[in-house]
Amino acid sequence: MSTAPGRAVGIDVGGTKCLGVALDGHGQIVGEHRLRTPRGRGSLPKLIDTLVELVDVLGPCDEVGVGVPGLVTRGGVLRAAANLDEVADFDVAGLLGERLSRQVHVDNDATCAAVAEWRLGAGVGSSDMVLVTLGTGIGGGLVSGGRLQRGTNGFAGEYGHMVVDPSGPPCPCGRRGCWERYASGSGLARLAREATIGRRADRVLEIAGGDPEAVRGEMVQEAAREGDPDALAVIDEFGRWVALGLVNLANALDPERFVLGGGLAAGADLYLGPITRWFGELIYQPELRPMPAITFARWHERAGAVGAALLHSAHVVGDPT
Amino acid sequence: MSTAPGRAVGIDVGGTKCLGVALDGHGQIVGEHRLRTPRGRGSLPKLIDTLVELVDVLGPCDEVGVGVPGLVTRGGVLRAAANLDEVADFDVAGLLGERLSRQVHVDNDATCAAVAEWRLGAGVGSSDMVLVTLGTGIGGGLVSGGRLQRGTNGFAGEYGHMVVDPSGPPCPCGRRGCWERYASGSGLARLAREATIGRRADRVLEIAGGDPEAVRGEMVQEAAREGDPDALAVIDEFGRWVALGLVNLANALDPERFVLGGGLAAGADLYLGPITRWFGELIYQPELRPMPAITFARWHERAGAVGAALLHSAHVVGDPT
Repeated sequence: MSTAPGRAVGIDVGGTKCLGVALDGHGQIVGEHRLRTPRGRGSLPKLIDTLVELVDVLGPCDEVGVGVPGLVTRGGVLRAAANLDEVADFDVAGLLGERLSRQVHVDNDATCAAVAEWRLGAGVGSSDMVLVTLGTGIGGGLVSGGRLQRGTNGFAGEYGHMVVDPSGPPCPCGRRGCWERYASGSGLARLAREATIGRRADRVLEIAGGDPEAVRGEMVQEAAREGDPDALAVIDEFGRWVALGLVNLANALDPERFVLGGGLAAGADLYLGPITRWFGELIYQPELRPMPAITFARWHERAGAVGAALLHSAHVVGDPT
Repeated sequence: MSTAPGRAVGIDVGGTKCLGVALDGHGQIVGEHRLRTPRGRGSLPKLIDTLVELVDVLGPCDEVGVGVPGLVTRGGVLRAAANLDEVADFDVAGLLGERLSRQVHVDNDATCAAVAEWRLGAGVGSSDMVLVTLGTGIGGGLVSGGRLQRGTNGFAGEYGHMVVDPSGPPCPCGRRGCWERYASGSGLARLAREATIGRRADRVLEIAGGDPEAVRGEMVQEAAREGDPDALAVIDEFGRWVALGLVNLANALDPERFVLGGGLAAGADLYLGPITRWFGELIYQPELRPMPAITFARWHERAGAVGAALLHSAHVVGDPT
């Protein structure tokens, strides 16, 4: 079987589907395929079959990378994953590598998204970039000093569980006031539900059929696009919480650029203004520092797969010192 | 003038004194000298004179480094400094370099302390290390992927102004609930004062001469060393706040090791237990990750000067990519 020079396959494993892309040596998507993610008891061997099938369908390549949702060790083992079944120390790199008789690069899906934006997206040319994925929860990835940073175990970028209010609402992780309770899609829905209960978001409540428990982030977006001031106020409050976490990361890391990805990127036009304004209000010593760029991601649902295809160029091989 | 091979001079500029050390090529301190920091109107040229004098006194050397308190650009310009007078874009690297006719490395004092611990102290051998200085405020430095990380402007490591409670006590920086309102020396004193007002720290209040406003962190330490349960409870609460910030940094950065320096390191025996215990309570998914090491610094008041002497080996020269 001949190999197209520089061709790489990347696969993003999600809770419902696995998306595979083939990139040519210029970073162009030259193939794409989706398969359903096997779920339920005994599904993990079938998941490896699915990954093998995607690599087969997408054709001969020089590199294979996989992004998976959860904590991934530097050796490519998925320690746990909330959106997959029965995962406990699932050796994706080892099992898939054995089936394909080749090296496979495996990393966290948000780390893959960071690589996609850094190499071929909104963060091209940046040596200090923080990617934050604003989805159901919050994940992320980090480039510092011109290198992808994965942390000592490979777990860097779990920004969503930074505590921003120890007396805040409980988080499924067992603590209170994690950033993702405020600044994710579910955080936006929670802020909106609280506004409806306080009778400060009648139009959102109407869109939700009158049931506060049915309020979702998309409904806030819809009302905001109609110009509803209550919905815009919820989005402003949401923007303040997003900015608060970005400011904390800026104080620690001083990035040149933040890239915001994940499902909420679909409402970038609504969120970017409030986030940027609140960032300027909240940053430490704004008069002494250039503001970092804050942009939304270029890659949307393909970010994880594209970044997985590029992992081979982002993982530093050999002694990092 | 002959030069001792590998000899380096480092100077730590503080609000009251400038401490200079000379290190030989093996990292041993072979010379040390202190001079008073010039203060008041027109003192900055005198500060450069003081630095020149320290380099002269400490003898011929191959490298000179300086640590200064405040935001330092990657070009060695001190943007501002709360504990020095009239500082506004003070070009330490340029002015001192001109006087000495040589390259001078200049960085933030906490970044210097991180270099000292990483190269010759508690963090030797660690490629992912977070140094946090717990003093009057909180500063810090960062090593990721085997390299010192300074951020795009040189301002990385300002951990003290990460907000951990947006409705918390006001901070001189203009916001509320910054980490250093809780987890620094002044944070400890504040927690203790609140305990005395609530009549939960009678022994501390007694040491303070009955005046809650006179309570200092050292008095809490003193009472705790006597075994006073109220003081120990304050230290436990303080340890929880320190741990909360460390956990936030661990979620973002996944370091192998935290090194705690600054003035509070003098009470390491009292603080380390509560900090470590609370860290285990608060970290996200503790069952899935090895705990990072949490240790106090090896270098105490000399950390900044020793690290300044080592800056030449920590600043990556050339293109970081």
